[in-house]
Amino acid sequence: MEQKHLSIFIPASILAETKDLKLRTYKVGLIGRSAAIFKVDRIVVYNDHSDKEEVKFISDVLTYMNTPQYLRKKVFPITKELRYAGILPPLRTPHHPTEKVGEGDYRQGLTIKRTKKGTIVDIGADKLALCREKLTVNKVMSFRVLKFGKEITIEPDKPEVYWGYKILSTYKNLYESIEMLKPKSDLIIGTSKYAEPITFILDEVKDSLKGSKRVTILFGGPYSGLHDLIDQREILDLEVNTVPSQGTKTVRTEEAVLATLSVFNLLLNAE
Amino acid sequence: MEQKHLSIFIPASILAETKDLKLRTYKVGLIGRSAAIFKVDRIVVYNDHSDKEEVKFISDVLTYMNTPQYLRKKVFPITKELRYAGILPPLRTPHHPTEKVGEGDYRQGLTIKRTKKGTIVDIGADKLALCREKLTVNKVMSFRVLKFGKEITIEPDKPEVYWGYKILSTYKNLYESIEMLKPKSDLIIGTSKYAEPITFILDEVKDSLKGSKRVTILFGGPYSGLHDLIDQREILDLEVNTVPSQGTKTVRTEEAVLATLSVFNLLLNAE
Repeated sequence: MEQKHLSIFIPASILAETKDLKLRTYKVGLIGRSAAIFKVDRIVVYNDHSDKEEVKFISDVLTYMNTPQYLRKKVFPITKELRYAGILPPLRTPHHPTEKVGEGDYRQGLTIKRTKKGTIVDIGADKLALCREKLTVNKVMSFRVLKFGKEITIEPDKPEVYWGYKILSTYKNLYESIEMLKPKSDLIIGTSKYAEPITFILDEVKDSLKGSKRVTILFGGPYSGLHDLIDQREILDLEVNTVPSQGTKTVRTEEAVLATLSVFNLLLNAE
Repeated sequence: MEQKHLSIFIPASILAETKDLKLRTYKVGLIGRSAAIFKVDRIVVYNDHSDKEEVKFISDVLTYMNTPQYLRKKVFPITKELRYAGILPPLRTPHHPTEKVGEGDYRQGLTIKRTKKGTIVDIGADKLALCREKLTVNKVMSFRVLKFGKEITIEPDKPEVYWGYKILSTYKNLYESIEMLKPKSDLIIGTSKYAEPITFILDEVKDSLKGSKRVTILFGGPYSGLHDLIDQREILDLEVNTVPSQGTKTVRTEEAVLATLSVFNLLLNAE
């Protein structure tokens, strides 16, 4: 199967009912885990009447999770808000390797400083690595190890396997956030319990998926169902209820994300 | 679609890596929520090398969640272990009504004591109700309100809608727990990442579901994948990987439960 690029949109209000910082951290962690399990490439955090701090917190936790263990302390200053980051379950994705780095390996690295020779990069080895290109400093990027000896030399590169997600915190509402997507999506799917059950339009959904390379799935929040956020449906290619015949009155966003990605994983892998 | 009876098996080891009581409570809560969202009738907690306390804790939290708000304080003495029960998200199922009770309504009640007339039951109204049958005392049961006036009279009854789950704590291993199932299942499905992707055998799974009224889905734990627990496969009718092509090395039990039930919900509602 040709690999799709999968994006999900999460509202900042997912934590509106959760005051406890430990649980707030854990709930965002569930979304990060769901994204990694189902190989989501991009998580967009949009603002639905929440304050900006909320967008920042969710983005920070997701970024923390996506950062390999050996870079976390360097990328994230210890802040009050992240003091429970230790409870976040590891993603255990290929881009968070647990083995020692060697020649030919792909590794994420933090660009430290520029020199005449290129850029010095921390890839979590016992010494710093050199990339012969001039790169922006203080960014986490992906590299391949060219030589691993007295000197470590690397070049920017990414393997074919799932390599984590990108986080886009728009601080904007859903509409504006969709406009900001680059590259644009071929297929934008809204999820709502008021929409048609996915089982009723399974063939339509499958056909749409088949023809699309970049698929985006939108989720609403506890105070703003997607149905309400989208008055004019023109921005949606499809609107579906991915939890048909639900036994509970509501499905929480973090539950909907995992349940929905699981359904789409089935549809995407079925052909 | 004819309603299936769905059971899930959860190992006591799901909390083996979680020491924090608040998170332990919340994780079991995720399983309770997943069960209610997908109308699971029975949750079996089996013991895979954990101690008995662990089985009891998981069962207590699940039972607490399934008990309507108005009976919780009467059914559950305040214990140290349940001190974070307040963080558990409500199920918001039909059997946890938020409106006042009236004639014809179905309500869960706690049997208080036996009298000459029958059994006195607390159904969360401002006075106790009378059931003219002789019932076991101190049990939560389901009733229908026959008359709601100066006296409230009720009879044991259940509506057609989803009415919560039963918990069976076997304190036994997986094998023995399956043997204890009453009524027996028509179809026992094991989930494992080492099994065939469900997408490869979708028609076989669908056919098996179609012919079965009582479906049981088994989950393994962090230290005991289902594949290891079951040496001889004779107890399984099917073994499937419900998260094909996963991006992470492992899928946690609480994640697998939600993802798997979501997939089966799709298959069960598709016809």
